[in-house]
Amino acid sequence: MKRTLGTCYYPEHWDEAIWAQDAARMVELGLTWVRIGEFAWSRIEPAPGTFDWGWLDRAMDVLGNAGLRVVLGTPTATPPRWVADKYPDMFALDAEGRVRGFGSRRHYCFSHEGYRAECARIVEAVAERYGAHPALAAWQTDNEYGCHDTTISYSPAAREAFQGWLRGQYPGAGNDGDIGALNRAWGNVFWSMEYDSFEQIGLPNLTVTEPNPSHALAFRRFSSDQVVSFNALQCEIIRRYSDAPISHNYMGRITDFDHFAVGEDMEIATWDSYPLGFLEDRVGASVDVQRAFSKQGDPDFQAFHHDLYRAVGKGRWWVMEQQPGPVNWAPHNPAPLPGMVRLWTWEAFAHGAEAVCYFRWRQAPFAQEQLHAGLLRPDSAEAAGMAEARSVAQELAEAPDVGGAQAPVALIFDYDADAAWAVQPQGNGADGAGLSYFALVFDFYRALRRLGLSVDIVSPETRDFAGYRLILAPGMMHMDEGLKTALSAGSAKVLVGPRGACKTFDMAIPVPLPPALPGLDAEVSYVETLRGDCPIALENGGSFVHWRDAMEGSARVLERDANGAPAVMQGGVWRYVAGWPDAEAVLRIVWDACTDAGVEVEPMPGALRRRETGSEVFWFNYAAEEVHHEGRIFGPASVTRDTL
Amino acid sequence: MKRTLGTCYYPEHWDEAIWAQDAARMVELGLTWVRIGEFAWSRIEPAPGTFDWGWLDRAMDVLGNAGLRVVLGTPTATPPRWVADKYPDMFALDAEGRVRGFGSRRHYCFSHEGYRAECARIVEAVAERYGAHPALAAWQTDNEYGCHDTTISYSPAAREAFQGWLRGQYPGAGNDGDIGALNRAWGNVFWSMEYDSFEQIGLPNLTVTEPNPSHALAFRRFSSDQVVSFNALQCEIIRRYSDAPISHNYMGRITDFDHFAVGEDMEIATWDSYPLGFLEDRVGASVDVQRAFSKQGDPDFQAFHHDLYRAVGKGRWWVMEQQPGPVNWAPHNPAPLPGMVRLWTWEAFAHGAEAVCYFRWRQAPFAQEQLHAGLLRPDSAEAAGMAEARSVAQELAEAPDVGGAQAPVALIFDYDADAAWAVQPQGNGADGAGLSYFALVFDFYRALRRLGLSVDIVSPETRDFAGYRLILAPGMMHMDEGLKTALSAGSAKVLVGPRGACKTFDMAIPVPLPPALPGLDAEVSYVETLRGDCPIALENGGSFVHWRDAMEGSARVLERDANGAPAVMQGGVWRYVAGWPDAEAVLRIVWDACTDAGVEVEPMPGALRRRETGSEVFWFNYAAEEVHHEGRIFGPASVTRDTL
Amino acid sequence: MKRTLGTCYYPEHWDEAIWAQDAARMVELGLTWVRIGEFAWSRIEPAPGTFDWGWLDRAMDVLGNAGLRVVLGTPTATPPRWVADKYPDMFALDAEGRVRGFGSRRHYCFSHEGYRAECARIVEAVAERYGAHPALAAWQTDNEYGCHDTTISYSPAAREAFQGWLRGQYPGAGNDGDIGALNRAWGNVFWSMEYDSFEQIGLPNLTVTEPNPSHALAFRRFSSDQVVSFNALQCEIIRRYSDAPISHNYMGRITDFDHFAVGEDMEIATWDSYPLGFLEDRVGASVDVQRAFSKQGDPDFQAFHHDLYRAVGKGRWWVMEQQPGPVNWAPHNPAPLPGMVRLWTWEAFAHGAEAVCYFRWRQAPFAQEQLHAGLLRPDSAEAAGMAEARSVAQELAEAPDVGGAQAPVALIFDYDADAAWAVQPQGNGADGAGLSYFALVFDFYRALRRLGLSVDIVSPETRDFAGYRLILAPGMMHMDEGLKTALSAGSAKVLVGPRGACKTFDMAIPVPLPPALPGLDAEVSYVETLRGDCPIALENGGSFVHWRDAMEGSARVLERDANGAPAVMQGGVWRYVAGWPDAEAVLRIVWDACTDAGVEVEPMPGALRRRETGSEVFWFNYAAEEVHHEGRIFGPASVTRDTL
Repeated sequence: MKRTLGTCYYPEHWDEAIWAQDAARMVELGLTWVRIGEFAWSRIEPAPGTFDWGWLDRAMDVLGNAGLRVVLGTPTATPPRWVADKYPDMFALDAEGRVRGFGSRRHYCFSHEGYRAECARIVEAVAERYGAHPALAAWQTDNEYGCHDTTISYSPAAREAFQGWLRGQYPGAGNDGDIGALNRAWGNVFWSMEYDSFEQIGLPNLTVTEPNPSHALAFRRFSSDQVVSFNALQCEIIRRYSDAPISHNYMGRITDFDHFAVGEDMEIATWDSYPLGFLEDRVGASVDVQRAFSKQGDPDFQAFHHDLYRAVGKGRWWVMEQQPGPVNWAPHNPAPLPGMVRLWTWEAFAHGAEAVCYFRWRQAPFAQEQLHAGLLRPDSAEAAGMAEARSVAQELAEAPDVGGAQAPVALIFDYDADAAWAVQPQGNGADGAGLSYFALVFDFYRALRRLGLSVDIVSPETRDFAGYRLILAPGMMHMDEGLKTALSAGSAKVLVGPRGACKTFDMAIPVPLPPALPGLDAEVSYVETLRGDCPIALENGGSFVHWRDAMEGSARVLERDANGAPAVMQGGVWRYVAGWPDAEAVLRIVWDACTDAGVEVEPMPGALRRRETGSEVFWFNYAAEEVHHEGRIFGPASVTRDTL
Repeated sequence: MKRTLGTCYYPEHWDEAIWAQDAARMVELGLTWVRIGEFAWSRIEPAPGTFDWGWLDRAMDVLGNAGLRVVLGTPTATPPRWVADKYPDMFALDAEGRVRGFGSRRHYCFSHEGYRAECARIVEAVAERYGAHPALAAWQTDNEYGCHDTTISYSPAAREAFQGWLRGQYPGAGNDGDIGALNRAWGNVFWSMEYDSFEQIGLPNLTVTEPNPSHALAFRRFSSDQVVSFNALQCEIIRRYSDAPISHNYMGRITDFDHFAVGEDMEIATWDSYPLGFLEDRVGASVDVQRAFSKQGDPDFQAFHHDLYRAVGKGRWWVMEQQPGPVNWAPHNPAPLPGMVRLWTWEAFAHGAEAVCYFRWRQAPFAQEQLHAGLLRPDSAEAAGMAEARSVAQELAEAPDVGGAQAPVALIFDYDADAAWAVQPQGNGADGAGLSYFALVFDFYRALRRLGLSVDIVSPETRDFAGYRLILAPGMMHMDEGLKTALSAGSAKVLVGPRGACKTFDMAIPVPLPPALPGLDAEVSYVETLRGDCPIALENGGSFVHWRDAMEGSARVLERDANGAPAVMQGGVWRYVAGWPDAEAVLRIVWDACTDAGVEVEPMPGALRRRETGSEVFWFNYAAEEVHHEGRIFGPASVTRDTL
Repeated sequence: MKRTLGTCYYPEHWDEAIWAQDAARMVELGLTWVRIGEFAWSRIEPAPGTFDWGWLDRAMDVLGNAGLRVVLGTPTATPPRWVADKYPDMFALDAEGRVRGFGSRRHYCFSHEGYRAECARIVEAVAERYGAHPALAAWQTDNEYGCHDTTISYSPAAREAFQGWLRGQYPGAGNDGDIGALNRAWGNVFWSMEYDSFEQIGLPNLTVTEPNPSHALAFRRFSSDQVVSFNALQCEIIRRYSDAPISHNYMGRITDFDHFAVGEDMEIATWDSYPLGFLEDRVGASVDVQRAFSKQGDPDFQAFHHDLYRAVGKGRWWVMEQQPGPVNWAPHNPAPLPGMVRLWTWEAFAHGAEAVCYFRWRQAPFAQEQLHAGLLRPDSAEAAGMAEARSVAQELAEAPDVGGAQAPVALIFDYDADAAWAVQPQGNGADGAGLSYFALVFDFYRALRRLGLSVDIVSPETRDFAGYRLILAPGMMHMDEGLKTALSAGSAKVLVGPRGACKTFDMAIPVPLPPALPGLDAEVSYVETLRGDCPIALENGGSFVHWRDAMEGSARVLERDANGAPAVMQGGVWRYVAGWPDAEAVLRIVWDACTDAGVEVEPMPGALRRRETGSEVFWFNYAAEEVHHEGRIFGPASVTRDTL
């Protein structure tokens, strides 16, 4: 498939006189795409019902006439002040009950019906106006759902919507739901928490001690569903006026809504890749990794998201915003090591991206992101990232095709499991925060990458695993019976645990005890969480950290800990990992699983990573130093492309 | 005295069909007691005034018929949703002004008169129904007062009640109190904080900088008194219908109300012992101790509480909830080392417990504590703690009598001093929190234990110290004249300081300067608090940390610091410790005091501890390794019982 | 000039019977000044409109008759309860929206018009009563503006006043301002943040993500201006009744309002010097420095403030409150090393203080500061600091004259730059807080002091730099064109950067890119902030930490970093430092600048510091050990005075 480049542009930020020159420079650079419009509501509709289409018409024309293809964003992430004045209660409330007001962006509650109606209106107006514009090539809904912790709102609107959602979850006679069913499902008898009606149910914040985890998980599922329906509404409207594909630009390391579910309603998934900001702010890497990769980003974090959004997009995905230089929002904001902008771009293509767009064309000299680099400086001179973007463009001009192939290994990423871990972490990690599903899954993913493997991330709704030899589903707290059956019946080996299948859908412990997997005679008798300075050594090296499942049962024990307790058990297609393995242990455990499954590995030195596309092998060296591998030398921050 | 075992059971959580089997298994295990009912309000009174006694009648019968003795809890810690709907302002407010609402437990403000009336009503209903039931053997009021930081509420109800309480503290003509007396006592002239009337007095939160410490201390005393009267009301009602003893289950390391005062109204004190959760969450131990005792608990923390509640219960006390496996609520939740459940149980008996009840019978698969172990797993199979409980039961069957004897050393624990330190810590400890009275007292207690001593903890109201050779009262900021006189007149030696007798009742510095103890010519000229990295070395070894009293006066100097300043002074019965001694110094200082007082010591190696009962000596080895002492070997996590 | 001593006294705190004795002891000690009245509103006006002048009349008389000169404070920092009852909305709101209520001090919002009117009334009453009193020698307005984080209030009153202030900043036709001008200046188009009217503008707190930095900076400037006008109102009233000089006692390390602007309206600047409290709480020193100087204070922090307030007071300045022993408000509160009270006092005189007043005369045994030392203990015996105060008094009696001379080096301190850094730190320091202008400037100041230099701090409004050979203006984000011109035209060399002149007045990036200084062909292409473990080594030693400006241009490169990038560039009068130098680098860079400018340096060993006054050289050894320098020995905590 041919791969293309683009950028994010804000005509409303600049004098109209330079639009044409900007467009020409974009084309000269080799860009195909330009994304516009997603923050421009106050210019499109300066007053309620008063539209100013002129400037946007001209911008579309200028860009289109230059040969660029426009991705048009719906402006719903930044409602203007007059919208907020119309709906003073449209804001989200945080967990402390504070109103998250006007003055930046994403200042809305997904559950507010009035705001939803405003969104429908502005989306329809934009879609109607540009749905058939010749430059219009794709849509983006809103911007970075969930960014700035905006998925979950504790507003009155959210409470009322949650009650309605619960009625649907526990349906009764008529429309009022079965409150007894809810009480039983949640075990509300526990502390006399039983409700007499759905109207009594509050949000699970500001309780004296922890709320019922069933209550908390339900609220997270509801909050995720609100994002899904908010987005679906926009898609439905756009489709009335346009055949162009619809996308949303997900933000990295946002897991508090189900991206698979949101993605169902769109043709393309895109994500916003800020490797340096993420390393500082979100990866959760050790201090050693943060220091070593301060100017490169974590060697596996981008790839993880590439593989994730390939799944979310059902094969079609982009990087909608690619960091081209220092950003402004992380605890520290260094400049990328020379070569990294090119590396990041090629890595996206190697993982299947159709397009990579740099954020942003020109650094804005004003407002919140004035210290966020663009391809151009505020004075329109070229910034450091521009030359690397040009290199990629030239390389693409010579060889735009990159292959794509199914990986031998699949990793199930389950947003619902992430919510369940967040609701009931049962222990803290090194940073003092609760143990995180993402962190666990990422440890397994990193091990796969250190073994030189290409990986497909798949949804927990997947039932057809044909072509995979090994499937990993670590930490999946609730496992649907359909999935259990599909995996059991398949030919692939399956690695699960810790906390595998340990909860019912309603967040209770099932009896018989977990994991209750067909063919695996093993059960978790109890669990324990561990201090950082109290790891449990494994007899084959490495340790369990954070978490241990105490196992019983007759299944084959593949590994034991130093106390003789089972660490890995096997039966049927299943391999159960009874704890959270550290870096040494996870590499061995995954390696063993690969060997057992017939998956060939090629261990990587240092921060060298490889990706097979079917037609080629890419090598990415994230290190600031060269690395040697099988007689070859890979330079620092380098990309190497071998044709197969 | 004969010692017995029990468990905590929630018939409302389980199918009625298994109650009889559960009861039979309890009896088979050797249990005497079963506590029920304390969270069951929503099942006892599902709607206002509508009672459903049937299930509880049957549960009482089933348990009683099996031969178990029932401890019945009043359900006031978990008011149902309909109570909260009736009194929307019944909730506590936290120091930030946020409502602490429905959805878990302990969601009430002690000062809310409406809720108090509801409590009186439900307690009367329960007491009337079961006061004469043959299975009814004891009562428990509410559950874990103060747990989840619920003693202190900044609600409007609390403010109004505080104003009334202050009128009583500073009585004037009529009912309105003497506001001038309050202004003078508090020194409100200081920053023009003088009040014209009691109605003007607010709660000491959300002030611009620290509130007046006299104000803050008064509010803590008020808050403590509210717990006392809340509990007394329940006791008074129960006694109308029942002759069974009344108890409350205090939570460990809760010091923000006066347990002695609450205990005055009841026959038995009980406490809830979670050694592993406490070590992680509340002991304040060093990281080294936390790591070494992660699966055993702090070697002195349980004993401290045993000794404390023996005093609170005026000799009669239980462990009402004993941890039998991992819990769910600490930062990390490891499983106990094998042997510890038995050790913890026997240690309670060695310190005089009448009964030890395991919490809980069966692990609940639902709601907040679903990862809290029970004696049974959720599938009713035996959990790891069951075998140890059975061992204890068998040992008790063979030798249920354990002696009890006055210790040679008394330690005064003063809840009011704890409040005074909290109000005016004057410096931070290693964890960045204000210096803590509990931590200071516990350091002295640990030293006594490391010297092999049995200890009696006594109330500051004690005036008869007959039988004691040494009395410790470290950190007692206000010392009543009656206590000073009683101690001065006694035959025991008395160790006091730092901060000894340094405040008037109203939290001012007395003139003449402290400690002003009869027979001790010493005064504190000024105080200083110390950085963790700036200890003051003592000439005999060890250091003062955190706190130093700069001493003047002609009293004999027993020790000096490296600068030549007095570190320990002696006069009359008194020995004044002029700083917070570190582990090395406190051991020597206490040892010297023992020698001087004629108390024989037996220094313990490692985490070995001993307890004399008059008729026997118990040895408890908290270490995970064996320890050698005087030619004997004590195994890891072991209990050894020598008959004298 | 002759130097004098004084103390702070609260007649309302003590029995009137001892006033005369106190006054006599003050005079005997050698004190000239006594400050009174600043917290006494509730005694001056116990009820609305009811004044009790008697006690204050007598206090003025007693003190005056003893020969003391009175500094009288306006009592507006502590409005009585009845004022708060009259204006329930007079309180500030914190950034979280919580009311900062009654019960301590400084409980008012500067923007509340009702409270301003009350202040005008009480100030007029006091000024009228005592403006011509023979003992009245000076005035103090309010107390420690900004202390306890009270400059900035997020109250409704502040919001309304801010809107009015903005109308003045962006004036339009009529009185309503030009909202379009504001939108353009702030770049509100960025995220559709455009306003239709000034009424829509909120305060920049509780936004979903960071507010517009232009918005935030404007609000800080507004908040500063509110302090200026609040103070100016008091000065204007006082002047109607009195010719005595007016002062305000600024608190150390408060930078969130413009002290130069406030100081414009008064004759004398004073500040409150608590070296030990500051070191623990506010200096931001390394743990090593905190440990080494725990009982002495930071060796440069007091001097910095002395030099700063000499500028704020246009030459006339005092220490109004000098720590004489332990304080009560820092995380740890040690006692000063013997000698330090004398050292601190003499250091103030060496830097030009007219007077030093000890806070306080007698330690109060009650209320918030009961553990704050005075010259007397609560029992009226002499506290440790008294002897040192007496030494100074005796030394002054022998030689009260201390010289004063312009320093060779000027350092520009710009409160507006401090606000700009706070609004847009772009990175965190070692403590996890945003990078701080004060910390940067203080690093340069410390380097000057380590080179043995006397320093004049000057306002950014300065245009006449005659007499200076070197001017430092590190981190000055916005540089007025007038200042650029004045510096360019002067004979002094000027050191600027990092972040030099990097913003327009409205907090945008200027084009052409910064610093755009006449004669310096250099521009900052981009900036980056650095992890603490990722410093950038400099080829000549030391490193850039925290911050780097990536430079382009043809100006002469004086130093490079280890990657070859320019670290220091020179052109015209300018020397641009392209990063935040660590201790080693800043010393060399400043030394080189001195050499270039013809400023002679004398590097100091350890914590020895020197100050030239024109007629003498003072040496201050802040170390707890003696130090050797050029064949002389300086004792610990010593002052040495060499006459030139």
